[in-house]
Amino acid sequence: MREPQQERSRATHQRLLEATIECLAERGWAGTTVGVVAQRAGVSRGAIQHHFPTREDLITSALEHMFDRRMHEVRIAAEGLPRGEGRVESIVVRLVDYFTGEVFKAALQVWTAAAADPVLRERIVPLELKFGRTVHAVAIELLEADDTDPTTHRLVQATLDMGRGLGLADVLTDDSRRRSEIVKAWAAHLAQALAPARPGTAPADTLPRRE
Amino acid sequence: MREPQQERSRATHQRLLEATIECLAERGWAGTTVGVVAQRAGVSRGAIQHHFPTREDLITSALEHMFDRRMHEVRIAAEGLPRGEGRVESIVVRLVDYFTGEVFKAALQVWTAAAADPVLRERIVPLELKFGRTVHAVAIELLEADDTDPTTHRLVQATLDMGRGLGLADVLTDDSRRRSEIVKAWAAHLAQALAPARPGTAPADTLPRRE
Repeated sequence: MREPQQERSRATHQRLLEATIECLAERGWAGTTVGVVAQRAGVSRGAIQHHFPTREDLITSALEHMFDRRMHEVRIAAEGLPRGEGRVESIVVRLVDYFTGEVFKAALQVWTAAAADPVLRERIVPLELKFGRTVHAVAIELLEADDTDPTTHRLVQATLDMGRGLGLADVLTDDSRRRSEIVKAWAAHLAQALAPARPGTAPADTLPRRE
Repeated sequence: MREPQQERSRATHQRLLEATIECLAERGWAGTTVGVVAQRAGVSRGAIQHHFPTREDLITSALEHMFDRRMHEVRIAAEGLPRGEGRVESIVVRLVDYFTGEVFKAALQVWTAAAADPVLRERIVPLELKFGRTVHAVAIELLEADDTDPTTHRLVQATLDMGRGLGLADVLTDDSRRRSEIVKAWAAHLAQALAPARPGTAPADTLPRRE
Protein backbone atom coordinates (compact mmCIF):
# COMPACT_ATOMS: atom_id res chain seq x y z
CA MET A 1 0.00 0.00 0.00
CA ARG A 2 1.60 3.26 -1.12
CA GLU A 3 0.53 6.57 0.31
CA PRO A 4 -0.65 8.84 -2.54
CA GLN A 5 0.78 11.82 -0.59
CA GLN A 6 4.18 10.18 -0.25
CA GLU A 7 4.13 9.20 -3.91
CA ARG A 8 3.31 12.76 -5.00
CA SER A 9 6.14 14.04 -2.86
CA ARG A 10 8.57 11.57 -4.43
CA ALA A 11 7.43 12.52 -7.93
CA THR A 12 7.91 16.22 -7.14
CA HIS A 13 11.38 15.52 -5.76
CA GLN A 14 12.29 13.65 -8.94
CA ARG A 15 10.88 16.37 -11.21
CA LEU A 16 12.89 19.01 -9.34
CA LEU A 17 16.14 17.10 -9.80
CA GLU A 18 15.51 16.64 -13.52
CA ALA A 19 14.50 20.28 -14.02
CA THR A 20 17.66 21.42 -12.22
CA ILE A 21 19.94 19.39 -14.51
CA GLU A 22 18.11 20.58 -17.67
CA CYS A 23 18.30 24.14 -16.46
CA LEU A 24 22.04 23.99 -15.65
CA ALA A 25 22.83 22.45 -19.04
CA GLU A 26 20.76 25.05 -20.93
CA ARG A 27 21.08 28.23 -18.87
CA GLY A 28 24.29 27.72 -16.94
CA TRP A 29 25.12 28.22 -13.29
CA ALA A 30 24.00 31.85 -13.04
CA GLY A 31 20.74 31.14 -14.89
CA THR A 32 19.78 28.25 -12.61
CA THR A 33 17.93 30.04 -9.84
CA VAL A 34 15.37 28.42 -7.54
CA GLY A 35 12.67 30.48 -9.25
CA VAL A 36 13.58 29.26 -12.75
CA VAL A 37 13.72 25.62 -11.60
CA ALA A 38 10.37 26.00 -9.79
CA GLN A 39 8.72 27.30 -12.95
CA ARG A 40 10.22 24.54 -15.13
CA ALA A 41 9.19 21.80 -12.69
CA GLY A 42 5.74 23.35 -12.16
CA VAL A 43 6.06 23.62 -8.38
CA SER A 44 6.13 26.56 -6.00
CA ARG A 45 9.35 28.03 -4.59
CA GLY A 46 8.06 27.05 -1.16
CA ALA A 47 7.75 23.41 -2.25
CA ILE A 48 11.39 23.46 -3.45
CA GLN A 49 12.55 24.86 -0.13
CA HIS A 50 10.64 22.09 1.63
CA HIS A 51 12.75 19.53 -0.30
CA PHE A 52 16.01 21.53 -0.53
CA PRO A 53 16.75 24.32 1.96
CA THR A 54 19.27 26.15 -0.29
CA ARG A 55 20.01 26.55 -4.01
CA GLU A 56 23.33 24.75 -3.46
CA ASP A 57 21.52 21.81 -1.81
CA LEU A 58 19.19 21.56 -4.82
CA ILE A 59 22.04 21.69 -7.34
CA THR A 60 24.43 19.27 -5.63
CA SER A 61 21.59 16.81 -4.88
CA ALA A 62 20.47 16.96 -8.51
CA LEU A 63 23.99 16.31 -9.80
CA GLU A 64 24.60 13.42 -7.42
CA HIS A 65 21.25 11.72 -7.97
CA MET A 66 21.25 12.11 -11.76
CA PHE A 67 24.89 10.99 -12.01
CA ASP A 68 24.07 7.82 -10.05
CA ARG A 69 21.12 7.18 -12.33
CA ARG A 70 23.26 7.64 -15.47
CA MET A 71 25.92 5.23 -14.15
CA HIS A 72 23.17 2.70 -13.40
CA GLU A 73 21.92 3.08 -16.98
CA VAL A 74 25.44 2.60 -18.39
CA ARG A 75 25.77 -0.63 -16.39
CA ILE A 76 22.35 -1.91 -17.52
CA ALA A 77 23.09 -1.08 -21.18
CA ALA A 78 26.40 -2.93 -20.97
CA GLU A 79 24.75 -6.09 -19.62
CA GLY A 80 23.21 -6.79 -23.00
CA LEU A 81 26.47 -6.41 -24.95
CA PRO A 82 27.75 -9.52 -26.69
CA ARG A 83 31.20 -10.75 -25.71
CA GLY A 84 33.92 -10.64 -28.33
CA GLU A 85 35.68 -8.24 -30.60
CA GLY A 86 33.37 -5.21 -30.59
CA ARG A 87 32.75 -5.22 -26.84
CA VAL A 88 35.46 -2.75 -25.81
CA GLU A 89 34.31 -0.25 -28.43
CA SER A 90 30.66 -0.59 -27.32
CA ILE A 91 31.65 0.06 -23.72
CA VAL A 92 33.78 3.10 -24.64
CA VAL A 93 30.84 4.43 -26.69
CA ARG A 94 28.55 4.16 -23.66
CA LEU A 95 31.05 5.81 -21.33
CA VAL A 96 31.61 8.65 -23.81
CA ASP A 97 27.81 9.01 -24.13
CA TYR A 98 27.81 9.97 -20.46
CA PHE A 99 30.42 12.69 -21.04
CA THR A 100 28.40 14.19 -23.88
CA GLY A 101 25.07 13.94 -22.05
CA GLU A 102 23.04 16.45 -20.09
CA VAL A 103 24.35 15.49 -16.63
CA PHE A 104 27.95 16.12 -17.71
CA LYS A 105 26.99 19.44 -19.34
CA ALA A 106 25.24 20.44 -16.10
CA ALA A 107 28.26 19.36 -14.02
CA LEU A 108 30.58 21.35 -16.30
CA GLN A 109 28.62 24.51 -15.50
CA VAL A 110 28.93 23.85 -11.77
CA TRP A 111 32.63 22.85 -11.86
CA THR A 112 33.43 26.01 -13.86
CA ALA A 113 31.51 28.22 -11.43
CA ALA A 114 33.32 26.50 -8.54
CA ALA A 115 36.70 27.34 -10.14
CA ALA A 116 35.95 31.01 -9.46
CA ASP A 117 34.20 30.59 -6.09
CA PRO A 118 36.19 29.15 -3.14
CA VAL A 119 33.09 28.38 -1.03
CA LEU A 120 31.37 26.47 -3.83
CA ARG A 121 34.66 24.78 -4.71
CA GLU A 122 34.93 23.28 -1.23
CA ARG A 123 31.47 21.79 -1.67
CA ILE A 124 32.08 20.49 -5.20
CA VAL A 125 35.53 18.89 -4.79
CA PRO A 126 34.16 15.81 -2.89
CA LEU A 127 31.46 15.43 -5.57
CA GLU A 128 34.05 15.57 -8.36
CA LEU A 129 36.14 12.97 -6.53
CA LYS A 130 33.12 10.69 -6.17
CA PHE A 131 32.16 11.07 -9.85
CA GLY A 132 35.74 10.37 -10.97
CA ARG A 133 36.09 7.26 -8.80
CA THR A 134 32.66 5.91 -9.72
CA VAL A 135 33.04 6.26 -13.47
CA HIS A 136 36.49 4.64 -13.21
CA ALA A 137 35.06 1.72 -11.22
CA VAL A 138 32.21 1.29 -13.74
CA ALA A 139 34.70 1.32 -16.64
CA ILE A 140 36.95 -1.28 -14.95
CA GLU A 141 33.94 -3.48 -14.15
CA LEU A 142 32.48 -3.36 -17.67
CA LEU A 143 35.85 -3.83 -19.39
CA GLU A 144 36.67 -6.66 -16.95
CA ALA A 145 40.07 -5.05 -16.73
CA ASP A 146 42.72 -5.71 -14.10
CA ASP A 147 42.93 -2.40 -12.27
CA THR A 148 45.90 -3.60 -10.21
CA ASP A 149 48.00 -3.56 -13.39
CA PRO A 150 49.47 -0.02 -13.49
CA THR A 151 49.38 0.29 -17.29
CA THR A 152 45.76 -0.88 -17.43
CA HIS A 153 44.81 1.50 -14.61
CA ARG A 154 46.33 4.44 -16.49
CA LEU A 155 44.91 3.55 -19.89
CA VAL A 156 41.42 3.34 -18.42
CA GLN A 157 42.01 6.74 -16.78
CA ALA A 158 43.28 8.09 -20.12
CA THR A 159 40.11 6.76 -21.78
CA LEU A 160 37.94 8.61 -19.29
CA ASP A 161 40.00 11.80 -19.64
CA MET A 162 39.55 11.51 -23.41
CA GLY A 163 35.82 11.14 -22.71
CA ARG A 164 35.89 14.33 -20.61
CA GLY A 165 37.68 16.14 -23.44
CA LEU A 166 35.17 14.86 -25.99
CA GLY A 167 32.41 16.10 -23.70
CA LEU A 168 34.00 19.53 -23.61
CA ALA A 169 34.36 19.57 -27.40
CA ASP A 170 30.61 18.93 -27.69
CA VAL A 171 29.47 21.84 -25.53
CA LEU A 172 29.24 24.55 -28.23
CA THR A 173 28.72 22.50 -31.37
CA ASP A 174 27.56 19.00 -32.32
CA ASP A 175 30.85 17.10 -32.44
CA SER A 176 29.31 13.64 -32.90
CA ARG A 177 30.79 12.80 -36.32
CA ARG A 178 34.37 13.61 -35.36
CA ARG A 179 33.84 11.92 -32.01
CA SER A 180 32.63 8.58 -33.34
CA GLU A 181 35.79 8.20 -35.47
CA ILE A 182 38.05 9.06 -32.53
CA VAL A 183 36.25 6.64 -30.21
CA LYS A 184 36.62 3.86 -32.79
CA ALA A 185 40.37 4.44 -33.19
CA TRP A 186 40.93 4.73 -29.45
CA ALA A 187 38.84 1.67 -28.60
CA ALA A 188 40.83 -0.44 -31.09
CA HIS A 189 44.04 0.52 -29.25
CA LEU A 190 42.52 0.01 -25.84
CA ALA A 191 41.20 -3.43 -26.83
CA GLN A 192 44.71 -4.42 -27.94
CA ALA A 193 46.29 -3.08 -24.80
CA LEU A 194 43.81 -4.85 -22.51
CA ALA A 195 43.62 -8.15 -24.36
CA PRO A 196 46.75 -9.89 -22.96
CA ALA A 197 45.83 -9.07 -19.38
CA ARG A 198 42.20 -10.20 -19.59
CA PRO A 199 41.54 -13.55 -18.02
CA GLY A 200 39.90 -16.29 -20.07
CA THR A 201 40.84 -14.88 -23.47
CA ALA A 202 43.28 -16.25 -26.01
CA PRO A 203 46.87 -14.93 -25.91
CA ALA A 204 47.25 -11.52 -27.51
CA ASP A 205 48.94 -12.62 -30.72
CA THR A 206 46.27 -15.14 -31.71
CA LEU A 207 43.43 -12.60 -31.62
CA PRO A 208 42.29 -10.92 -34.83
CA ARG A 209 43.86 -7.49 -35.01
CA ARG A 210 43.17 -4.20 -36.71
CA GLU A 211 46.38 -2.30 -37.46
CA MET B 1 63.61 54.67 -33.98
CA ARG B 2 60.55 53.70 -31.95
CA GLU B 3 58.07 56.23 -30.70
CA PRO B 4 57.87 56.14 -26.88
CA GLN B 5 54.12 56.87 -27.19
CA GLN B 6 53.60 53.93 -29.52
CA GLU B 7 55.68 51.69 -27.28
CA ARG B 8 53.66 52.66 -24.21
CA SER B 9 50.48 51.92 -26.09
CA ARG B 10 51.76 48.48 -27.10
CA ALA B 11 52.78 47.69 -23.52
CA THR B 12 49.35 48.74 -22.24
CA HIS B 13 47.66 46.58 -24.88
CA GLN B 14 49.77 43.60 -23.81
CA ARG B 15 49.13 44.17 -20.10
CA LEU B 16 45.39 44.32 -20.74
CA LEU B 17 45.40 40.99 -22.59
CA GLU B 18 47.37 39.30 -19.80
CA ALA B 19 45.18 40.79 -17.06
CA THR B 20 42.05 39.59 -18.89
CA ILE B 21 43.29 35.99 -19.06
CA GLU B 22 44.38 35.99 -15.40
CA CYS B 23 41.04 37.45 -14.39
CA LEU B 24 38.99 34.90 -16.39
CA ALA B 25 40.97 31.99 -14.95
CA GLU B 26 40.62 33.27 -11.37
CA ARG B 27 37.24 35.00 -11.28
CA GLY B 28 35.36 33.40 -14.14
CA TRP B 29 33.27 34.92 -16.91
CA ALA B 30 30.90 36.89 -14.70
CA GLY B 31 33.74 38.24 -12.55
CA THR B 32 35.72 39.51 -15.54
CA THR B 33 34.31 42.97 -16.00
CA VAL B 34 36.08 45.85 -17.76
CA GLY B 35 36.43 47.58 -14.36
CA VAL B 36 38.14 44.59 -12.72
CA VAL B 37 40.53 44.16 -15.66
CA ALA B 38 41.31 47.91 -15.67
CA GLN B 39 42.22 47.79 -11.98
CA ARG B 40 44.38 44.69 -12.37
CA ALA B 41 46.21 46.13 -15.39
CA GLY B 42 46.57 49.53 -13.72
CA VAL B 43 44.89 51.46 -16.54
CA SER B 44 41.71 53.52 -16.74
CA ARG B 45 38.43 52.14 -18.12
CA GLY B 46 38.70 54.81 -20.82
CA ALA B 47 42.10 53.47 -21.88
CA ILE B 48 40.62 49.96 -22.21
CA GLN B 49 37.77 51.25 -24.34
CA HIS B 50 40.32 52.99 -26.56
CA HIS B 51 41.91 49.59 -27.26
CA PHE B 52 38.76 47.40 -27.09
CA PRO B 53 35.32 48.95 -27.68
CA THR B 54 33.37 46.19 -25.84
CA ARG B 55 33.98 43.66 -23.07
CA GLU B 56 33.53 40.85 -25.63
CA ASP B 57 36.20 42.44 -27.88
CA LEU B 58 38.61 42.52 -24.95
CA ILE B 59 37.94 38.91 -23.96
CA THR B 60 38.04 37.35 -27.42
CA SER B 61 41.16 39.36 -28.36
CA ALA B 62 42.87 38.26 -25.15
CA LEU B 63 42.04 34.59 -25.75
CA GLU B 64 43.18 34.68 -29.37
CA HIS B 65 46.40 36.57 -28.71
CA MET B 66 47.43 34.57 -25.64
CA PHE B 67 46.54 31.26 -27.34
CA ASP B 68 48.78 32.17 -30.30
CA ARG B 69 51.58 33.03 -27.91
CA ARG B 70 51.23 29.74 -26.02
CA MET B 71 51.32 27.74 -29.27
CA HIS B 72 54.45 29.66 -30.28
CA GLU B 73 56.03 28.76 -26.92
CA VAL B 74 55.11 25.07 -27.35
CA ARG B 75 56.81 25.09 -30.79
CA ILE B 76 59.93 26.81 -29.45
CA ALA B 77 60.17 24.42 -26.47
CA ALA B 78 59.88 21.42 -28.81
CA GLU B 79 62.74 22.66 -31.00
CA GLY B 80 65.25 21.83 -28.31
CA LEU B 81 63.96 18.27 -27.74
CA PRO B 82 66.39 15.49 -28.60
CA ARG B 83 65.27 12.96 -31.21
CA GLY B 84 64.72 9.40 -30.10
CA GLU B 85 62.72 7.38 -27.64
CA GLY B 86 61.47 10.01 -25.20
CA ARG B 87 60.50 12.57 -27.83
CA VAL B 88 56.81 11.64 -28.19
CA GLU B 89 56.33 11.76 -24.43
CA SER B 90 58.06 15.16 -24.18
CA ILE B 91 55.80 16.55 -26.90
CA VAL B 92 52.64 15.15 -25.26
CA VAL B 93 53.77 16.68 -21.95
CA ARG B 94 54.13 20.10 -23.60
CA LEU B 95 50.73 19.85 -25.30
CA VAL B 96 49.06 18.78 -22.06
CA ASP B 97 50.81 21.69 -20.30
CA TYR B 98 48.81 23.99 -22.55
CA PHE B 99 45.53 22.33 -21.49
CA THR B 100 46.35 22.75 -17.81
CA GLY B 101 47.59 26.32 -18.18
CA GLU B 102 45.97 29.67 -17.56
CA VAL B 103 44.86 30.30 -21.16
CA PHE B 104 42.91 27.03 -21.25
CA LYS B 105 41.35 27.75 -17.84
CA ALA B 106 40.31 31.18 -19.14
CA ALA B 107 38.92 29.69 -22.35
CA LEU B 108 36.96 27.11 -20.34
CA GLN B 109 35.18 29.94 -18.50
CA VAL B 110 34.25 31.59 -21.80
CA TRP B 111 33.20 28.35 -23.57
CA THR B 112 30.99 27.45 -20.58
CA ALA B 113 29.38 30.90 -20.52
CA ALA B 114 28.82 30.62 -24.29
CA ALA B 115 27.00 27.30 -23.80
CA ALA B 116 24.24 29.23 -22.00
CA ASP B 117 24.30 32.37 -24.19
CA PRO B 118 23.40 32.06 -27.90
CA VAL B 119 24.87 35.48 -28.85
CA LEU B 120 28.21 34.76 -27.19
CA ARG B 121 28.18 31.23 -28.61
CA GLU B 122 28.02 32.58 -32.17
CA ARG B 123 31.10 34.65 -31.45
CA ILE B 124 33.05 31.86 -29.72
CA VAL B 125 32.41 28.96 -32.11
CA PRO B 126 34.88 30.26 -34.78
CA LEU B 127 37.48 30.82 -32.04
CA GLU B 128 37.01 27.26 -30.75
CA LEU B 129 37.37 25.95 -34.32
CA LYS B 130 40.58 27.94 -34.78
CA PHE B 131 42.04 26.75 -31.46
CA GLY B 132 41.17 23.11 -32.24
CA ARG B 133 42.71 23.22 -35.72
CA THR B 134 45.84 25.07 -34.59
CA VAL B 135 46.66 22.77 -31.68
CA HIS B 136 46.09 19.77 -33.98
CA ALA B 137 48.44 21.25 -36.61
CA VAL B 138 51.09 21.98 -33.95
CA ALA B 139 50.82 18.41 -32.61
CA ILE B 140 51.16 16.89 -36.11
CA GLU B 141 54.13 19.13 -36.88
CA LEU B 142 55.98 18.36 -33.64
CA LEU B 143 55.25 14.62 -33.79
CA GLU B 144 56.23 14.60 -37.49
CA ALA B 145 53.15 12.46 -37.94
CA ASP B 146 51.43 11.65 -41.23
CA ASP B 147 48.07 13.39 -40.83
CA THR B 148 46.81 11.86 -44.11
CA ASP B 149 46.80 8.45 -42.40
CA PRO B 150 43.30 8.16 -40.88
CA THR B 151 44.42 6.20 -37.79
CA THR B 152 47.23 8.67 -37.09
CA HIS B 153 44.86 11.60 -37.55
CA ARG B 154 42.41 10.13 -35.04
CA LEU B 155 45.00 9.11 -32.48
CA VAL B 156 46.43 12.64 -32.48
CA GLN B 157 42.88 13.99 -32.06
CA ALA B 158 42.30 11.52 -29.22
CA THR B 159 45.55 12.68 -27.59
CA LEU B 160 44.33 16.28 -27.69
CA ASP B 161 40.89 15.31 -26.38
CA MET B 162 42.65 13.49 -23.55
CA GLY B 163 44.60 16.73 -22.97
CA ARG B 164 41.31 18.67 -22.80
CA GLY B 165 39.95 16.16 -20.29
CA LEU B 166 43.11 16.38 -18.19
CA GLY B 167 42.75 20.16 -18.29
CA LEU B 168 39.21 19.87 -17.00
CA ALA B 169 40.30 17.48 -14.23
CA ASP B 170 42.81 20.12 -13.06
CA VAL B 171 40.35 22.99 -12.68
CA LEU B 172 39.26 22.38 -9.08
CA THR B 173 42.25 20.50 -7.67
CA ASP B 174 45.92 19.99 -8.49
CA ASP B 175 45.78 16.82 -10.60
CA SER B 176 49.45 16.86 -11.64
CA ARG B 177 50.55 13.57 -10.04
CA ARG B 178 47.76 11.48 -11.55
CA ARG B 179 48.19 13.34 -14.84
CA SER B 180 51.91 12.67 -15.26
CA GLU B 181 51.35 8.91 -14.97
CA ILE B 182 48.52 8.96 -17.50
CA VAL B 183 50.54 11.04 -19.95
CA LYS B 184 53.45 8.61 -19.64
CA ALA B 185 51.27 5.55 -20.27
CA TRP B 186 49.44 7.10 -23.21
CA ALA B 187 52.60 8.55 -24.78
CA ALA B 188 54.18 5.07 -24.80
CA HIS B 189 51.17 3.77 -26.76
CA LEU B 190 51.12 6.75 -29.09
CA ALA B 191 54.84 6.38 -29.80
CA GLN B 192 54.27 2.74 -30.76
CA ALA B 193 51.29 3.58 -32.92
CA LEU B 194 53.12 6.37 -34.76
CA ALA B 195 56.50 4.65 -35.14
CA PRO B 196 55.85 2.53 -38.27
CA ALA B 197 54.45 5.47 -40.19
CA ARG B 198 57.22 7.91 -39.31
CA PRO B 199 59.72 8.49 -42.08
CA GLY B 200 63.43 8.01 -41.36
CA THR B 201 62.94 5.79 -38.30
CA ALA B 202 63.70 2.12 -37.95
CA PRO B 203 60.84 -0.36 -38.52
CA ALA B 204 58.55 -0.67 -35.54
CA ASP B 205 59.71 -4.07 -34.38
CA THR B 206 63.39 -3.11 -34.11
CA LEU B 207 62.72 -0.21 -31.74
CA PRO B 208 63.07 -0.64 -27.99
CA ARG B 209 59.63 -1.16 -26.51
CA ARG B 210 57.93 -0.76 -23.18
CA GLU B 211 55.13 -3.25 -22.70
